[in-house]
Amino acid sequence: MPAFSMKDANFPVDDQGRTYHVECKHGDIANRVITVGDPSRAHIMAKKFDKIVFEHASHRGFLIITGIYRNVPITIVSIGMGLSMMDFFVRETRAVVDGPMNIIRFGSCGSICDAMPGNIIVADSSYGICRNYDHFTNAFKKSEPPYFIFDKISADPQLTQMLASKLKQDMGNDAIFEGSNGCADSFYSSQGRLGSHFIDENESLIQTLKKKYSDAVSLEMEAHMLYHLAATSTDGQGNPTIRASCALIVYADRTGNSFITPDAAEVAVASCTKAIFDTLVEDNFKGSELHPDEGSVWEAAISEPTKTAQPQEQPEAQDEE
Amino acid sequence: MPAFSMKDANFPVDDQGRTYHVECKHGDIANRVITVGDPSRAHIMAKKFDKIVFEHASHRGFLIITGIYRNVPITIVSIGMGLSMMDFFVRETRAVVDGPMNIIRFGSCGSICDAMPGNIIVADSSYGICRNYDHFTNAFKKSEPPYFIFDKISADPQLTQMLASKLKQDMGNDAIFEGSNGCADSFYSSQGRLGSHFIDENESLIQTLKKKYSDAVSLEMEAHMLYHLAATSTDGQGNPTIRASCALIVYADRTGNSFITPDAAEVAVASCTKAIFDTLVEDNFKGSELHPDEGSVWEAAISEPTKTAQPQEQPEAQDEE
Repeated sequence: MPAFSMKDANFPVDDQGRTYHVECKHGDIANRVITVGDPSRAHIMAKKFDKIVFEHASHRGFLIITGIYRNVPITIVSIGMGLSMMDFFVRETRAVVDGPMNIIRFGSCGSICDAMPGNIIVADSSYGICRNYDHFTNAFKKSEPPYFIFDKISADPQLTQMLASKLKQDMGNDAIFEGSNGCADSFYSSQGRLGSHFIDENESLIQTLKKKYSDAVSLEMEAHMLYHLAATSTDGQGNPTIRASCALIVYADRTGNSFITPDAAEVAVASCTKAIFDTLVEDNFKGSELHPDEGSVWEAAISEPTKTAQPQEQPEAQDEE
Repeated sequence: MPAFSMKDANFPVDDQGRTYHVECKHGDIANRVITVGDPSRAHIMAKKFDKIVFEHASHRGFLIITGIYRNVPITIVSIGMGLSMMDFFVRETRAVVDGPMNIIRFGSCGSICDAMPGNIIVADSSYGICRNYDHFTNAFKKSEPPYFIFDKISADPQLTQMLASKLKQDMGNDAIFEGSNGCADSFYSSQGRLGSHFIDENESLIQTLKKKYSDAVSLEMEAHMLYHLAATSTDGQGNPTIRASCALIVYADRTGNSFITPDAAEVAVASCTKAIFDTLVEDNFKGSELHPDEGSVWEAAISEPTKTAQPQEQPEAQDEE
């Protein structure tokens, strides 16, 4: 059921401007955002905030936690699973935030490289894998491939480099892998998981992916939509308004067929949180005007205005990055 | 985090055989299943059970409620939103149920026909609408259309006819509409909702859909995946193992731009529940062997074996349907 009376079938919001699914409104979400799939991951990360200033669970499975870290507001949003949930999250938060947004996804993935459960993959790009439905049900389209494999979209290079570097500092070089992530519309068929209950024609899919993209390292279900929406975001003048990156905990080793334990997953989350927070805080947004503190959920909790709160001033030109 | 230690990265299950995301195991799920998006809809429907015998909320947003109605077990699963969540649900429940499955989705939709908020659309078919990502980011693919529109897949004709007929009995002919549903990968772009924050090129999308499919009545985000998986389910001998249909409450009127109120949504759910339960109970599964009662969550709650519990014996040949 809608939790509130909504107006406007084109972009439903309630009378406070709260969006329909994520249930966020102007001032709830910071310019710096982390998105996770699992609400328990959001809660573990939020323990590292200096202070939590806002928490809201929506009626459709989204959880928002905004907190303060190093005097800077950061929002964590747990979105569930799948490319459509990423689309809801990016579009509804973008609608209520003024100024640019930096979004880091911190998710889980299956490894198709040497990374083992508990290691971290930083996805410097992601491509999409989508079932070609008609191939399976229309005899005239049998010659089309069973899965569409879309082009790679790059993560933001500066955010990604900073994120990888900080993760290596905290966890050691050997625990961090970089490469291209395959973002699938199914956990099963379009990630090459084999089963007998459905006609999937996916026996050679992982080999096909590795052949197309020699740097293919992981499979999950949201990163390509995030990078694609960042690439197609616009301020109306042709400039994107979202920069994005992604760190993925290896849950499944698809080569050796092993799976992470609950304890190891929790350790990995705790080990990565500081690097992700610090990356978001230390990126300087190139001096852009950020969301106003006035009227925001973090207004009373910060000691100086957000827009000047970057602790390490960075030089304007950063050609070495 | 995984709620339990999982084995097998190909199809992760815990040591009790519980699936990773839906967290269902053999004996939790009946052959007759209703899937909804919103957990509050599942709870409202479950009030009409004669008895609830099992309830479980998974760590990844799925809610399972199995109950008894007219001495027959029925399972309601709330799955959240999006085609990927439908894929998780269908594949993980199919993995733990013996015998055929009948699945009715009871969801919400936007109307692109004369149906108004609170009316019901029975989707006798559904087609998919998927963003063609490369169109937006690869100059060489600009000539491809911005959205892929997949073929229609039919609902099960017998289930659909019975469902529409019972809904008309309970709610009146004028409240029930039938036609083809468009199942989109986004609530926004691929349903033709217009906005300025992203490059979507979707101004003429709804007209394109109506031109391609003259019986296009509604837009939502899960039905095509359900019908596609039913069509590609297999017993290994070339026979599908799932039959599916769909009733959708109109939440948004995309022509007049109005939106359902929370009260009206609750009334619509209550009005449809009996027709959906009765459809599932009265379909006779053509005499197939069903999931064993022994060891199931409903074993102690039914007074005679499920497989002979159809209250109205139907003639073998039903050519008039």
